[in-house]
Amino acid sequence: MEKPYVIGIDMGGTNTAFGIVDTRGNVIAKSAIKTDNPDIEAYVQELKEECTKLIESVGGIDKIKGIGAGCPNGNYYTGNIEFAPNLPWEGVVPFAKMLTEAFGVPAAITNDANAAAVGEMTYGVARGMKNFIMITLGTGVGSGIVIDGKIVYGHDGFAGELGHVNVVRNNGRMCGCGRSGCLEAYTSATGVARSAREILEMSQTDSQLRSIPAESITSKDVFDAAMNGDEVAKEIFNYTGKILGESFADFVAFSAPEAIVLFGGLAKAGDLILNPIVENMEKNLLPIWKDKVKVLFSTLKDADAALLGASALGWEL
Amino acid sequence: MEKPYVIGIDMGGTNTAFGIVDTRGNVIAKSAIKTDNPDIEAYVQELKEECTKLIESVGGIDKIKGIGAGCPNGNYYTGNIEFAPNLPWEGVVPFAKMLTEAFGVPAAITNDANAAAVGEMTYGVARGMKNFIMITLGTGVGSGIVIDGKIVYGHDGFAGELGHVNVVRNNGRMCGCGRSGCLEAYTSATGVARSAREILEMSQTDSQLRSIPAESITSKDVFDAAMNGDEVAKEIFNYTGKILGESFADFVAFSAPEAIVLFGGLAKAGDLILNPIVENMEKNLLPIWKDKVKVLFSTLKDADAALLGASALGWEL
Repeated sequence: MEKPYVIGIDMGGTNTAFGIVDTRGNVIAKSAIKTDNPDIEAYVQELKEECTKLIESVGGIDKIKGIGAGCPNGNYYTGNIEFAPNLPWEGVVPFAKMLTEAFGVPAAITNDANAAAVGEMTYGVARGMKNFIMITLGTGVGSGIVIDGKIVYGHDGFAGELGHVNVVRNNGRMCGCGRSGCLEAYTSATGVARSAREILEMSQTDSQLRSIPAESITSKDVFDAAMNGDEVAKEIFNYTGKILGESFADFVAFSAPEAIVLFGGLAKAGDLILNPIVENMEKNLLPIWKDKVKVLFSTLKDADAALLGASALGWEL
Repeated sequence: MEKPYVIGIDMGGTNTAFGIVDTRGNVIAKSAIKTDNPDIEAYVQELKEECTKLIESVGGIDKIKGIGAGCPNGNYYTGNIEFAPNLPWEGVVPFAKMLTEAFGVPAAITNDANAAAVGEMTYGVARGMKNFIMITLGTGVGSGIVIDGKIVYGHDGFAGELGHVNVVRNNGRMCGCGRSGCLEAYTSATGVARSAREILEMSQTDSQLRSIPAESITSKDVFDAAMNGDEVAKEIFNYTGKILGESFADFVAFSAPEAIVLFGGLAKAGDLILNPIVENMEKNLLPIWKDKVKVLFSTLKDADAALLGASALGWEL
C-alpha cells in the first residue's frame, strides 16, 4: 500500500516546526522545538524524539513516505546546510543524511523559498502549473522557480536568488548580502520600512506615519496607515510595487512563466501591492507577454505554509 | 539500424541554408536558397527539391532521423513561425508540419538562439553541460537557456528573451522591440555602433573613428580601431562588456549556470569584450558564485553554427 503521510520540517533561526501531512495537504499533527541547540547531534536527537510522538499517533514510521525540510541555505543536491548565517551550526551540516539515519526513511532538504514553491505546486494555487515563479516577500526576498514542473536548482543547487538581482544600478541601497541595489533592499519588509523613512525624511507631506519614531516604523505600520487612507503610505506601496513589477517583467523574459505567486507578509497587503505590481509589470513586458502572465497570492494557510511546502518534497522521494 | 544523419535548416531573412549533419557534427553536404518567396508553399517546395539532391547523395531519406530548423520567431511547442517581422509570410506559418509533410520525416523548429544553444550542447563547448546560458551577440541579442540538459521554453514556448531585460531603467535607449533600455539596445552590433556615435559626440578625445562619417560607423570599425590601440574604441568595448557582465550576474542569480557561452559577431572581439564582461560579472555576483561561473566563446565553426544548432533538434525527434 502507498504510504499515506510525509513529514514536513520548517527550520527557522529560532524555532523548528514539524508536522505530519497527508496527500491533500492537511496537517494531521504538528509540534515545534527550539533551533538554538549549538550541538547539531543533540538537536537532531530532540527533533527525532518529539517527532516520533507524532509519528506514533498516526500508526508508526511505516506510514511515512519521506521527510522534507526547508532550511536556511539548504542545498537540495548535496543535502547539506551550507554556511547558514542565522543558524547555530558553523560550516557544512549534512542534514538530509542525519535525518535519514535518525528516522530510517528518505529525507531531502531545500531552502525556504523553494519549499514554498513546491508546496504551492503540490497543494496550493499553482496546482497543475508547470511553469511559475514563487516570490517570498518577508524579512528578506526569496524565490523558487519552477520550470517544466520542477524546481530550478542550477549547476550547484543554489539557483533562484531573485531577491538579489540588481534593481538600482547606481547608488542603490546597501543589501544584507554585502552588495547594493538588490531587489531585497527595496521590497522586503525591511525595505518597505526603509522606503518609509526615506520618503518621510525627503518630503514635507503630512502622514500618520510621522507619529511613529522613524527608526521604529515597520512595514505593518505602513500597511495600517495605507488602509487608513494615508497618502504617503500608499505612495510607499506604489513605489514597492513598481520595483517588483519592473523586475517581474525581466523574470518573465527569462522563463516565460504562467504565473508569479506572491507569498509572505507583504502579500497580505492585497490590492495595495498587487495593483502597482501588475500595472508596472504590464508596462514593461515584451508585447508577446502582455495580459498573459498572472500575478497571484499564495493560498496556503499562513501558519502551515512553510511546513507544507517542505513536506511536499517528501512525496518525491 | 540507427539513422545516421539529420537535416539542419538555418532560416534567415534573406537566405535559408540547409545541410546534412552526422552524429559528430560534421556537415556532410550543404546548400542554400533565397527566403524571399512570398508563397510559403512554393518556398517549401523549392526547399524540398534542393534538399532532396543532398539527401540522395547520402543514400536517401531512409538515412535521415529528423529535421531541425532555426527560424525567426519559431515556436518549439506549436511548430509555428509566429508573426515574424523579417520574413515574407504574414501571421502564423505551421512550418514544422509543412516540413514533416513535405519530407516524410519528423521535424521540429525553434528560434535561432535556442538552436545555437542546442548546437553548442550537442557538438560544441557546452558538450556535457546540463546548465548553461547561450548569449548570441549579433544584429540583435538573443539567448538560449539550458537547465537540466533541456532548453527552457516556458509556458508558451517563448522563454529566453534575455536581450530584452532592462539594463537602463530611466532614459534608456530606444530598442527595436518598442520599449527602452533593453540589453540589446546596448550590446548588439548596432548597440556598439550607437555607443561609438554617442561617445564621439560627447567627448573631444582623439580617435581613429572620427575619420568615418558618424552614421556609417559599424561594430567592425570599433573592433578594428580597438585592435589598433584606439583608446575611445577600447572604452566602447569596456562599456559594452560592463553592461553584459552586470546583466550576467543577474542571470546567474536566476539559474545558477555552469557557464555562459557567447556566440556571434561581437564574440570575435576576444579579450577586448571578455575581460570587461568577466570583471563586471564577478564584481556583481553574490559571494556564493564568485569565481565559479565560466564565460566561454562558442567553438562551433562560424559559417555552420546556426545550421548545426538547428540540426541538433533533429536527433531528439
